[in-house]
Amino acid sequence: MAAIKGKAVVAQSGGPTAVINASAYGVVQTAQKHPEAFTAVYGALNGILGVLNEELFDFAREDAKEIDRLWRTPSAALGSCRHKLKSLEKDRTDYQRILDVFKAHDIRYFFYIGGNDSMDTAARLGKLALEEKYEMIAIGVPKTIDNDLAFTDHCPGYGSVAKYTATSVMEAGLDTAALYTHDTCTVHEVMGRNAGWIAASAGLARRKPHDAPHIILVPEVPFVLDRFIANVKEYLKLYKQCFIACGEGIKTADGKYLGEAGGAFAKDSFGHAQLGGAGDVIRAIVEKEAGVKCRVNRAGTAQRVAMHFASQTDVKEAVMVGQAAISAALHGVHGKMITLVREAGPKYRCSTGLVELEKAANGEKPLPPEFIGPDGASVTEAFKRYLSPLVAGAADVETGEDGLPVYTRLVRKLVTKQIGR
Amino acid sequence: MAAIKGKAVVAQSGGPTAVINASAYGVVQTAQKHPEAFTAVYGALNGILGVLNEELFDFAREDAKEIDRLWRTPSAALGSCRHKLKSLEKDRTDYQRILDVFKAHDIRYFFYIGGNDSMDTAARLGKLALEEKYEMIAIGVPKTIDNDLAFTDHCPGYGSVAKYTATSVMEAGLDTAALYTHDTCTVHEVMGRNAGWIAASAGLARRKPHDAPHIILVPEVPFVLDRFIANVKEYLKLYKQCFIACGEGIKTADGKYLGEAGGAFAKDSFGHAQLGGAGDVIRAIVEKEAGVKCRVNRAGTAQRVAMHFASQTDVKEAVMVGQAAISAALHGVHGKMITLVREAGPKYRCSTGLVELEKAANGEKPLPPEFIGPDGASVTEAFKRYLSPLVAGAADVETGEDGLPVYTRLVRKLVTKQIGR
Repeated sequence: MAAIKGKAVVAQSGGPTAVINASAYGVVQTAQKHPEAFTAVYGALNGILGVLNEELFDFAREDAKEIDRLWRTPSAALGSCRHKLKSLEKDRTDYQRILDVFKAHDIRYFFYIGGNDSMDTAARLGKLALEEKYEMIAIGVPKTIDNDLAFTDHCPGYGSVAKYTATSVMEAGLDTAALYTHDTCTVHEVMGRNAGWIAASAGLARRKPHDAPHIILVPEVPFVLDRFIANVKEYLKLYKQCFIACGEGIKTADGKYLGEAGGAFAKDSFGHAQLGGAGDVIRAIVEKEAGVKCRVNRAGTAQRVAMHFASQTDVKEAVMVGQAAISAALHGVHGKMITLVREAGPKYRCSTGLVELEKAANGEKPLPPEFIGPDGASVTEAFKRYLSPLVAGAADVETGEDGLPVYTRLVRKLVTKQIGR
Repeated sequence: MAAIKGKAVVAQSGGPTAVINASAYGVVQTAQKHPEAFTAVYGALNGILGVLNEELFDFAREDAKEIDRLWRTPSAALGSCRHKLKSLEKDRTDYQRILDVFKAHDIRYFFYIGGNDSMDTAARLGKLALEEKYEMIAIGVPKTIDNDLAFTDHCPGYGSVAKYTATSVMEAGLDTAALYTHDTCTVHEVMGRNAGWIAASAGLARRKPHDAPHIILVPEVPFVLDRFIANVKEYLKLYKQCFIACGEGIKTADGKYLGEAGGAFAKDSFGHAQLGGAGDVIRAIVEKEAGVKCRVNRAGTAQRVAMHFASQTDVKEAVMVGQAAISAALHGVHGKMITLVREAGPKYRCSTGLVELEKAANGEKPLPPEFIGPDGASVTEAFKRYLSPLVAGAADVETGEDGLPVYTRLVRKLVTKQIGR
């Protein structure tokens, strides 16, 4: 089957990761090798906003060296956004506009790197194109540090945030263990609004029982105050210290977030902490109930783009899903998301698969029960076996004369608008 | 001159760093090569508390492989503490006790790795020994991430925290720049209670004007609300974003810390943030005055022990000061601290020197005016030239089968007490 001929556009969506550029690299660099299908490869400035605003740039005008740097550059070099489109069913203005921009530029391929919402957008766009008989191919490329996409063994971006989190917890844990004047606690707050995959990754640092983290709090296990305090006190008795890894999205049994204004404990004596995150609430609880000093570490956005200690496996797989997207498109595949498939056998091997965009959009994958320890505050050996290969290997870091990493600088000169707004 | 013969004790004090173990390695491994002077090399468990409590362990009983891992292990493997001794002049109990422990174990060498307070302790201890005609040698080994020790070009520990901070700010800066839906700010809070060296290090990440960090807040420059807000607004206008690196110890002109209960702005509408750190106060100010969303990153203790991305130069120099301490002791030097001396010339070279412990104890080195930009919110090229060689090179990371770093595990089996308490 001859491939459709036309331009391709690649867009990045949602929170940046260490490797979303590696996926863009996989798409762009592979597409540029196939001029028989792709008459040009465009990037959308700031995700779907770039398409809506007709802000597109041509990778042919970027320095090849800078394109090559994409796979070792964190964050989203094309630009990203958090923009929820109006529903196709209720108001097709946004989707219609996107299709108009595609038509105006003869864009026949849409590669969307993102999470659930992006897959939903790509699916609906594909549907509209079909309705309007505009021949185009939409392919989803998975990305999320949260690792909560269903139908894929894991998500590009997760291995790197997991490696950085586990290592930071290991190091900060050594800090808490070493500096002993009085008993202390440390809370290490990590991202993960709805799923505990990142908080769980801290568990990889605990090779021996006295290693940090002693307690892991994930959104999948409701936070029970009494049980938590008893747990902290037990570790303080055992080790004179307690290290707590805490997901930002932890909540009580009635579904109230701890780290939110007006959330759980907002009205009692821990309430003053409501203006911080979950980690600040945990600190207030520990200091009041266990009577020891408690510090809070919160890497914030730095954790999801920590390319300086990214996982080599993650980088390679991120490139791989980008390449697979092009390969699928060249085979006429449409309306699918690339998945990562862990092959059977004792040695870790990973290949790619496909799933319907609509399915991917609606699937969510919380931390499964078999990965959570019986105490509800630790991870199992099965989880460690799952995670360990995903953090393996040191990703390349190019260093400048000033001793710091060198990351790509794309020019992103916009192509002439065909429509305007 | 024949060296005194007796045991040596090495102790670590204050906040852990990425390389304080590298200095201990330099001391221990060099001392073990000189049995003609050192009849044994002991470690004190948790700094001076270990000496006071007669909790000492013998490095001869540690696995040589684990000793070798010291130079690539962060935090304080011997254990550290924050314990202020009673004044020698007012109450000599503590010092007398230490000397008694030394006498009971025939300890003739004391190597103390730490900051100002530790140098003070070592100086006074040496004084008391002299009074009591107990022949012993006390040598200080500099360590502090804060880089605020005088008489030394820089301090082991600073290069690594600077490298990690600058890199994290570069990466988080790319994150803020990439994720554009609305204008936003990010505050990146770093350590440094009295000096702005760490906050300043973030400035190395700013290679071009639009790079993060746009504003650097250091304790050396009083925080002026109006000027800060005007600055933030200007960057928002220019780049639709503003990235702020903020030292935890920033204060207003009247000396009030921003990040402290009851501190500056505690009573006005930013006051609710008083329970967080300086970064939380800055966030409250930005959100109220500039009307944009602001995120706070605070690596906390993880920043000072980030061995996974430490500076090779820092590791090497940390070992070097440890080795120099032994060399000095073998030459009969007493009552001095090892310093780092930057040699003249275009190429960075560094050797060691000596300074009186008493001088080192009382010297403090804030960020000098020539390193602070004319706007009071940036760093100069001179500072970048100063810092750049200190962050150079990638320190070795040993990795385990689980994909994470492997750090030393000392047994620290205590030697038999000769006194008890």
